[in-house]
Amino acid sequence: MSSPIAATGVPSPTVEYVLTFVCEDRPGIVHAVTGAIVEVGGNITESRQFESGSSHRFYMRLQLTTTATAEEIAAALTPVVERFGIEHRLDVVGRPVRTLVLGSTAKHCVNDLLFQVDAGHLPIEVPLILANHPTLEPLASFHGIPFEHLPTKGEGAKAAFEDRVRAAIDEHDIELVVLARYMQIVSPELCAELAGRCINIHHSFLPGFKGANPYRQAHARGVKQIGATAHFVTSDLDEGPIIEQDVIRVDHTRSPQELMAIGQDAEVRTLRQAVTWFAQSRVLLDGTRTIIFR
Amino acid sequence: MSSPIAATGVPSPTVEYVLTFVCEDRPGIVHAVTGAIVEVGGNITESRQFESGSSHRFYMRLQLTTTATAEEIAAALTPVVERFGIEHRLDVVGRPVRTLVLGSTAKHCVNDLLFQVDAGHLPIEVPLILANHPTLEPLASFHGIPFEHLPTKGEGAKAAFEDRVRAAIDEHDIELVVLARYMQIVSPELCAELAGRCINIHHSFLPGFKGANPYRQAHARGVKQIGATAHFVTSDLDEGPIIEQDVIRVDHTRSPQELMAIGQDAEVRTLRQAVTWFAQSRVLLDGTRTIIFR
Amino acid sequence: MSSPIAATGVPSPTVEYVLTFVCEDRPGIVHAVTGAIVEVGGNITESRQFESGSSHRFYMRLQLTTTATAEEIAAALTPVVERFGIEHRLDVVGRPVRTLVLGSTAKHCVNDLLFQVDAGHLPIEVPLILANHPTLEPLASFHGIPFEHLPTKGEGAKAAFEDRVRAAIDEHDIELVVLARYMQIVSPELCAELAGRCINIHHSFLPGFKGANPYRQAHARGVKQIGATAHFVTSDLDEGPIIEQDVIRVDHTRSPQELMAIGQDAEVRTLRQAVTWFAQSRVLLDGTRTIIFR
Amino acid sequence: MSSPIAATGVPSPTVEYVLTFVCEDRPGIVHAVTGAIVEVGGNITESRQFESGSSHRFYMRLQLTTTATAEEIAAALTPVVERFGIEHRLDVVGRPVRTLVLGSTAKHCVNDLLFQVDAGHLPIEVPLILANHPTLEPLASFHGIPFEHLPTKGEGAKAAFEDRVRAAIDEHDIELVVLARYMQIVSPELCAELAGRCINIHHSFLPGFKGANPYRQAHARGVKQIGATAHFVTSDLDEGPIIEQDVIRVDHTRSPQELMAIGQDAEVRTLRQAVTWFAQSRVLLDGTRTIIFR
Repeated sequence: MSSPIAATGVPSPTVEYVLTFVCEDRPGIVHAVTGAIVEVGGNITESRQFESGSSHRFYMRLQLTTTATAEEIAAALTPVVERFGIEHRLDVVGRPVRTLVLGSTAKHCVNDLLFQVDAGHLPIEVPLILANHPTLEPLASFHGIPFEHLPTKGEGAKAAFEDRVRAAIDEHDIELVVLARYMQIVSPELCAELAGRCINIHHSFLPGFKGANPYRQAHARGVKQIGATAHFVTSDLDEGPIIEQDVIRVDHTRSPQELMAIGQDAEVRTLRQAVTWFAQSRVLLDGTRTIIFR
Repeated sequence: MSSPIAATGVPSPTVEYVLTFVCEDRPGIVHAVTGAIVEVGGNITESRQFESGSSHRFYMRLQLTTTATAEEIAAALTPVVERFGIEHRLDVVGRPVRTLVLGSTAKHCVNDLLFQVDAGHLPIEVPLILANHPTLEPLASFHGIPFEHLPTKGEGAKAAFEDRVRAAIDEHDIELVVLARYMQIVSPELCAELAGRCINIHHSFLPGFKGANPYRQAHARGVKQIGATAHFVTSDLDEGPIIEQDVIRVDHTRSPQELMAIGQDAEVRTLRQAVTWFAQSRVLLDGTRTIIFR
Repeated sequence: MSSPIAATGVPSPTVEYVLTFVCEDRPGIVHAVTGAIVEVGGNITESRQFESGSSHRFYMRLQLTTTATAEEIAAALTPVVERFGIEHRLDVVGRPVRTLVLGSTAKHCVNDLLFQVDAGHLPIEVPLILANHPTLEPLASFHGIPFEHLPTKGEGAKAAFEDRVRAAIDEHDIELVVLARYMQIVSPELCAELAGRCINIHHSFLPGFKGANPYRQAHARGVKQIGATAHFVTSDLDEGPIIEQDVIRVDHTRSPQELMAIGQDAEVRTLRQAVTWFAQSRVLLDGTRTIIFR
Repeated sequence: MSSPIAATGVPSPTVEYVLTFVCEDRPGIVHAVTGAIVEVGGNITESRQFESGSSHRFYMRLQLTTTATAEEIAAALTPVVERFGIEHRLDVVGRPVRTLVLGSTAKHCVNDLLFQVDAGHLPIEVPLILANHPTLEPLASFHGIPFEHLPTKGEGAKAAFEDRVRAAIDEHDIELVVLARYMQIVSPELCAELAGRCINIHHSFLPGFKGANPYRQAHARGVKQIGATAHFVTSDLDEGPIIEQDVIRVDHTRSPQELMAIGQDAEVRTLRQAVTWFAQSRVLLDGTRTIIFR
């Protein structure tokens, strides 16, 4: 077991880590991983695992407290990682995830995310909001978040916007990109670069509606539930792995405009939940679907 | 005002009626209709109305108590009906609606409907269950409901089944046909004949999935909400006016089979609610959508 | 019918009004009221009524469009009002309701109310926020709302605070007082003065818990649903007529602190809904309970 | 590793087991337990754990597949169990739990439980229904379940009923007692004997109401949510550890009778969920609360 006492004789502080990993499913994984944790004097405080029947892969998320450093944990894990072909990620619980927010004119999602951050309920930090309209500037300013406005209209503007996204990701060491009603189609190239770390939010209905003006269509069919879906962005528009969905009941008295306001509330709740789970390392990708270790 | 005292000197009993009507929207309708109700000594106990912006039609549902007979009420309404071009329907509150149930092999919807009838929660009576499989026979028998089994497979079998449906509707003076997981495509002719009085139930998802084996597709996409939609049957398969929708939350641990069981529970609740509202004259058609006067 | 053409020959604009009224239940009320509406050329666009079995009183809410003025409508209603002993209220649909917000240190409810107002979803205007702590000042300032801080601690401080409430109500012609986590017991005198126009929000549980630190108690019992109740304030602490309730599912993994954060989200939604309904004249008092004409 | 090949040379079948255990929380438990599982060639297919901050105890539930027998698994676990002071339970996944149902006159819960068993959704078997009224006899008979009627009224009747419960538990090797609207106070002695294996269901409200006729009280206060709570029975009436809670939205138009019907639906869903989780070994007791490993 590695010593929790540093060379200076001062005891290391106890830290809570979150470890997520995935590998091909076979016997002995949990025993081997927990063996490495015992080695560094770790105590497991939370654990979820899932064996995906469709992909035959094994997913696990652990929280552990220990006085060992991240390097010591990684060293202890190395033989296990090599033996089982594990892809893993180690982080400190509660560390704010560096998040780039892309917006447009709609305020509801951005207002909620920033309020939750301020309230201490959402473990992210937002070094920059980038938008193709100036609307969000006062909101960003109130919360003390840098804001940039870059139009997406005009020859080459969209490509320039996406290049600014790439640069901002580098500058700020961004781990998560949130499309908070950004309302632009992301290029297939950027989708590919952001695979598994870019979350979009859109309205959803029972049953689904294709095409323009879905709230008008939903109104015409007399839909009774308005929902929202938060998902990872892929080049298949609005079709990436689903992270969270929520619905709100409506009735025939609602105008298309009111349906839209209700849809916005569903979007707020659903995006907040998806971002929270992501920031807590609770979202793992299993092919076209997500494992959520709530 | 018509006298509530019959010729014998015995006071007529007070009855609660439900009146629903629809006409082109213009001023004075409610005043005129309530005038007819005052004329028969009626007291309005419940009232809902809706002016449809999309169709410019006016919908109303009233419950009233009076000692007048249905004929007396109809007579008082006649001038109003003619003046405003009203289509109306008068019924006694709580009168069981004669309902033909079409089933197949799935029991969950039929079990719930019959249990709710027995418990006194669902104001319908079921003079016959017609199914293309014998599976539902014991359940029907336990509840004392006549049951007929008529296959839909083979040359002309489907047409014969639908002819039996037509005959049963005549024999039993059927007001509502419920497709309780009947699982057969109804012919366009029968759909047209049953317009506005045939309710179907099917699973629903956020977003929708087209094609076969939707639970497998929902599983593959990692859907987080499983729902059901009860709607009026039209020749557009699964696309008629929606009466009710409900959802149940699921997660990645559910197998396609478990998703199906949860979907069945959503179907049970949703169909029960739709049939209850229909039987209470709370469902009115407004083109492709429904007005629900809950 | 009163002329919709003013003396100048310019046609009066069409206005949508909301009329709410209550009286003892007896036949002919709706006919008489709608007669007055016909007289002023009004067209009823929405209508709900309820006959309370417990109090034998009749409640109604109507929306109507007309070119008549409020005075003309009132004049037409006068004979009906006298005949049936009606208490009534006439307003213009969508007119912002003058609302005094009382707060303390918690921001979640105030943030949401002000955001909804800005987004145009909540028909109130807030001329003043009054709080016993300075915490809400920046939030008020961002939304351009005057803010006053007046402590409630110390000899006579509470009475002075309540006197300032009374004065602010007069100055700003306040119609609604919202206790947005004000966290102080309102004196019986002020409760009585504000009867039916002061809304409070508090957490709620299945089952209820009495006494201090309810989230800790809820945690200890392993409660599975965290809720909130918005109600009119009465001198019976937390026991006034309920306007709205909502719940959010939780599980054993939640700490008392997380339960509190979830409870805050339930409070936000519930208070927003209650205030919206009040501002739309959809909340009527029926003794110890409310009629909500959604 | 124990051999999966039996002496006859025929490979043993692979069986899925569920292992639940609890002990004082300290490092190394998961590693030790999974070591025993590796020893018997087991593959962990599902795992949940929880460290209770309030009781400092560690709870875990594992599902594993192996060709080893239950005896072989127990043998491999013995040193770990002794070292950590573990209380554990090993079972085969999906084995029907022997369940005694106690009823009275209400049918809704019993109908649903028996239907779910027949549909294959609820892994219990019911060898006997015991009731203090004859009402449930036809329902029991339809599902082929033995039924006994024993009154609880009269001198010594209640004690005789409880003695019959004790005898039935012995005769049928009962693992779970379900009070499906049994409506009788269980003696403190029987409560103690059935600790942790007797589930009760009752209605719940936001906020709670004490005393008789709660639906009438809920109606009087204008409650907006009707719920139900399933909990383990303790001698504190209706106050045992909560297993599941659910709510259904209502409004002012509902009569006390309708509120009761809605409450019954909430009871049905809630009890079904609680019994399902118990039968799947997903419910662990942590003092006055439950850990639910969904």
